[in-house]
Amino acid sequence: MKEEVFYGKGMQKVKEEDEELYQSIVSLNNAVWNGKVLDYKAQKLIAIGIAASNADSRATVRQMMSAKKELGVTREEVIDVLKVVLLTSGMQPFNKALQIANKVFE
Amino acid sequence: MKEEVFYGKGMQKVKEEDEELYQSIVSLNNAVWNGKVLDYKAQKLIAIGIAASNADSRATVRQMMSAKKELGVTREEVIDVLKVVLLTSGMQPFNKALQIANKVFE
Amino acid sequence: MKEEVFYGKGMQKVKEEDEELYQSIVSLNNAVWNGKVLDYKAQKLIAIGIAASNADSRATVRQMMSAKKELGVTREEVIDVLKVVLLTSGMQPFNKALQIANKVFE
Amino acid sequence: MKEEVFYGKGMQKVKEEDEELYQSIVSLNNAVWNGKVLDYKAQKLIAIGIAASNADSRATVRQMMSAKKELGVTREEVIDVLKVVLLTSGMQPFNKALQIANKVFE
Amino acid sequence: MKEEVFYGKGMQKVKEEDEELYQSIVSLNNAVWNGKVLDYKAQKLIAIGIAASNADSRATVRQMMSAKKELGVTREEVIDVLKVVLLTSGMQPFNKALQIANKVFE
Amino acid sequence: MKEEVFYGKGMQKVKEEDEELYQSIVSLNNAVWNGKVLDYKAQKLIAIGIAASNADSRATVRQMMSAKKELGVTREEVIDVLKVVLLTSGMQPFNKALQIANKVFE
Repeated sequence: MKEEVFYGKGMQKVKEEDEELYQSIVSLNNAVWNGKVLDYKAQKLIAIGIAASNADSRATVRQMMSAKKELGVTREEVIDVLKVVLLTSGMQPFNKALQIANKVFE
Repeated sequence: MKEEVFYGKGMQKVKEEDEELYQSIVSLNNAVWNGKVLDYKAQKLIAIGIAASNADSRATVRQMMSAKKELGVTREEVIDVLKVVLLTSGMQPFNKALQIANKVFE
Repeated sequence: MKEEVFYGKGMQKVKEEDEELYQSIVSLNNAVWNGKVLDYKAQKLIAIGIAASNADSRATVRQMMSAKKELGVTREEVIDVLKVVLLTSGMQPFNKALQIANKVFE
Repeated sequence: MKEEVFYGKGMQKVKEEDEELYQSIVSLNNAVWNGKVLDYKAQKLIAIGIAASNADSRATVRQMMSAKKELGVTREEVIDVLKVVLLTSGMQPFNKALQIANKVFE
Repeated sequence: MKEEVFYGKGMQKVKEEDEELYQSIVSLNNAVWNGKVLDYKAQKLIAIGIAASNADSRATVRQMMSAKKELGVTREEVIDVLKVVLLTSGMQPFNKALQIANKVFE
Repeated sequence: MKEEVFYGKGMQKVKEEDEELYQSIVSLNNAVWNGKVLDYKAQKLIAIGIAASNADSRATVRQMMSAKKELGVTREEVIDVLKVVLLTSGMQPFNKALQIANKVFE
């Protein structure tokens, strides 16, 4: 299920309070993960790269866990993503994401 | 050639002035793009996603142009990358990257 | 028209290529600017603050121009926004946004 | 009191060690929150939007708590702010801020 | 003069419109560059590193030009700063700043 | 030892899994901290400024602790760094880094 990363408890409350906003997020989510040429896994690895590059721990954990659970993404694949993070974005976000990967894929 | 994005005129000067730094960048570059499980193209698309998410016009142009020239990456593939940027990072970086994609892949 | 900031030439192409994505962006845009308690102008000033804080020139120009044209937002109002940018995010984004404000509201 | 967000325990030490720095921060703080046309509440909502857009948990918690306590800002108002964060800056900072809002305004 | 980086044309207008804000910026500026143990040059190099790490072209140009003009900072010193940017923040901001350094210190 | 900040437990695993990547990071690390004109301490203070400006708690803690332990950097020196962070990058990253400094240098 592609929605799991986004639809946590917080989203449940949004659904109850603002149906229009909730439906628009669902639509966007569906449209985004519905790649014309890239498959869901390729897109998911990009999402991990973006979260890691932004040094956003919460998003990085979420994306890695969902990638592992939904798609069977492996530590090796994630490390290949993080190498791109290291080159483009440096040791600070790389180290943070590496530490998270070590926990998620231990 | 994987080096083209990084080794512009600026790097030439680094090579002359600081051989140790230059060689370490070459080594890192080689180690990064040498994915164990992901191929160069999958990593390149991640680099485009990261540059676009950071709203870094210069890096986005460079990565897209090198992806197109070195790997034959298409507009459709880049749009699938930018959809992930839109969802994770919002309309501001998405719009900037979309405009660049429209120029690089026209 | 709340859509003007987002629906430039780039978006036209998205509409032709990926109707589902385009419609989901339209829906999200409508849901977002449809504040339950804040009016469009209050939300617009927040969007200016965010663009300025991110030191994103393109987004800052767009938001300020649309705020001026659609809502008659004044230089004085924008300066009060930028003061918050200065305090929270420092002189670097403040100076960049101030320069843009001086052009948009001259 | 507009000072509460900024003058925590850390600031107390700055006051003792560097009176000039401390006084300049107090002056800046006073000048910033003293909007010519926008009131304090409008500026506060902008500060929440900026903190949330930057995915800065600490600043987001602080701004939301101070907004609630000093100004009686409601969950509905904060959600209207976060909708702008979602559109401009994406799901990653939106989700983080939504989770914080759910705690601060439960 | 330590003020040159900050007090461009934009600031002139702030001075005319909002004396309180202007004076508080002047005070902060004076308090910041008045290091207790670090001298102005050490602080200036830190400011260059921060501007470069943020991939903020405008701020990077300004800081480098002011460092060169006010303090006689050399290309070699700036390269030693940019090496830290490379390690902590990656090739994307490093390349952008390197290009700027090549122009400012040619 | 200049390596301590970077070579934590996470790096140990990289060494076992990807020798080429590990060696390239070691080389880069050596080349970076080997300033031609700036000494290690001057570069370290720049690294603290960058980590603090990015509001990256983990990197800020690491850099401050290593600066204190390896180089005997004092609270006063770090405060002079953070003043530059305050001016360039605002109260949000300044406050976060100040809180960390208060713990590391208590």
